[in-house]
Amino acid sequence: MPLKIARIEIAGAVRWAVDSSAGLRLLSGDYPTTRAFFENGGPQDAAQVAQGGDIVEADRILSPVTRDAKFICQATNYASHVREVGGDPDAITNNVFFTKASSCIVPADAAIIRPPHVRLLDYEIELGLVLKHGWDGPQEITEANLGDWIGGLVIVNDVTARDVQISHMQFHKSKSYRTFGPVGPWLVLPSPEELARWRELELVLAVDGEQRQRSFAGDMIFKPAETLTELSRIMDLAAGDLIATGTPGGVALHPPSAFVQALAGFLAPAKRFKAFMKGQLPRPAYLRDGQLMTAAIRTQDGAIDLGEQRNLIQPAS
Amino acid sequence: MPLKIARIEIAGAVRWAVDSSAGLRLLSGDYPTTRAFFENGGPQDAAQVAQGGDIVEADRILSPVTRDAKFICQATNYASHVREVGGDPDAITNNVFFTKASSCIVPADAAIIRPPHVRLLDYEIELGLVLKHGWDGPQEITEANLGDWIGGLVIVNDVTARDVQISHMQFHKSKSYRTFGPVGPWLVLPSPEELARWRELELVLAVDGEQRQRSFAGDMIFKPAETLTELSRIMDLAAGDLIATGTPGGVALHPPSAFVQALAGFLAPAKRFKAFMKGQLPRPAYLRDGQLMTAAIRTQDGAIDLGEQRNLIQPAS
Repeated sequence: MPLKIARIEIAGAVRWAVDSSAGLRLLSGDYPTTRAFFENGGPQDAAQVAQGGDIVEADRILSPVTRDAKFICQATNYASHVREVGGDPDAITNNVFFTKASSCIVPADAAIIRPPHVRLLDYEIELGLVLKHGWDGPQEITEANLGDWIGGLVIVNDVTARDVQISHMQFHKSKSYRTFGPVGPWLVLPSPEELARWRELELVLAVDGEQRQRSFAGDMIFKPAETLTELSRIMDLAAGDLIATGTPGGVALHPPSAFVQALAGFLAPAKRFKAFMKGQLPRPAYLRDGQLMTAAIRTQDGAIDLGEQRNLIQPAS
Repeated sequence: MPLKIARIEIAGAVRWAVDSSAGLRLLSGDYPTTRAFFENGGPQDAAQVAQGGDIVEADRILSPVTRDAKFICQATNYASHVREVGGDPDAITNNVFFTKASSCIVPADAAIIRPPHVRLLDYEIELGLVLKHGWDGPQEITEANLGDWIGGLVIVNDVTARDVQISHMQFHKSKSYRTFGPVGPWLVLPSPEELARWRELELVLAVDGEQRQRSFAGDMIFKPAETLTELSRIMDLAAGDLIATGTPGGVALHPPSAFVQALAGFLAPAKRFKAFMKGQLPRPAYLRDGQLMTAAIRTQDGAIDLGEQRNLIQPAS
């Protein structure tokens, strides 16, 4: 079983702990950031403490990825999601990246605050990869050496304001509002052998108990090794940075067919957006104030279990 | 005249200096990041040293914005640019944001390395705003209090791989390749009165001496005060973070008319991209290996002068 790490609030301080059969055991080191956790021996600390450190009661479990991290996301990375948004999975030849503002990161049990102007609030469960080492130049990252680069796995919910996303075309704003990025609860540290099982991780998201998304990570179009290799050819990343690997089918967004979308291309942007809203607003799948999202990722045998997120939708006060 | 700050390499160390009639004067403080420069008294240090600190010779002028900064960009923020890419400026109702990876930031005289697969390399001169204070919640930022938030002005060149941008739709990858973000040379610290003249800043970009872009910052669609106010409603930003405010007309990219673009919407993505490349490849305006870009921003009276960038285009070795 992999070590399961939590970043916790305890007596007004922020500390790190490791899960054990007896409860949370406090790590001896103090790591101000997820980057520091990986760079300053957090995993070794956790392995040692797991043998018998102090049991503690957390006041709250925080996001195990801190807000200094870069938050990179893959778009259209599951065939089932490509199809539902009117695309052709066979036509996907580019690994498309965008970013979320890291200030949207919140704990796995945080309320999602719907901004007043957002009417089409949507969910996207994703497997999150947390780097244990950074790079400042191209790397060849393969299935065989994946464990040299990926330090931890987390659940990510890429909460999205679809009305902002569609009217802006660029995704950054619609996915960056504060609270739009629940991460955790656990930072799971897989051994290389456990990491090799990443395809078997099953992602399940439900709203008020009704299942909306269910897929295996293995259904990804661009796999982690090729994604990290490509990212290394473009940009520098550091330990603690987070890559969200895309969402499978089942989101609330359900745009018209590719043909109707092409037809709409002849409308002025304002008319096109009005037609889009008219089609989407009646859809009951969009998140409503007071609803509870739950999101879980685990292997079916339970050997690798990233935990569960529980997020209530709330209007901005 | 505003203080003009440089981050310099000198005898193997990185320091900060202020411009004076006698040359660069070394700041007494040591600021590891642009954020630290603003948070730990850099501007006051510079004002004092400008009265008579040690004159030094820089080995190299570095980017005055360090790579820990967030690098946020506005899309389609000048009517002249909206028109040339087939849009209708009157239809622009959304302030669209995207990000560049901060690892693309390079000095103002750095070579731009064209990745081997990039065939449509383009330039975008932009006025860069550097924050002196961050926020973690909504702020009302106005023309009157703009000087409380904007600490410095810089030249930014938002270098872009158009072939990657158009085939990916999301802009992040195409604008994030290493060296795609020359920033500086100067970090100009305007007084509130000088900052009030931001509309008069004239942006000029040339390739091998041939002028390509020329516009006043005042032609922006979404002005700095409203842009910062909106950003504060979405995400946290910190001192030292960089907002590039969009590029005026004159870039190499020249897609077909909106009508032809709408027609192309009926093609499969691969065919649409092939047609786009066929139209763009013959355009001589795209940057070629060996060409020299120059970019300058100043008021016509020279009172506020952000300096000049000089960047040679080089193929990846």
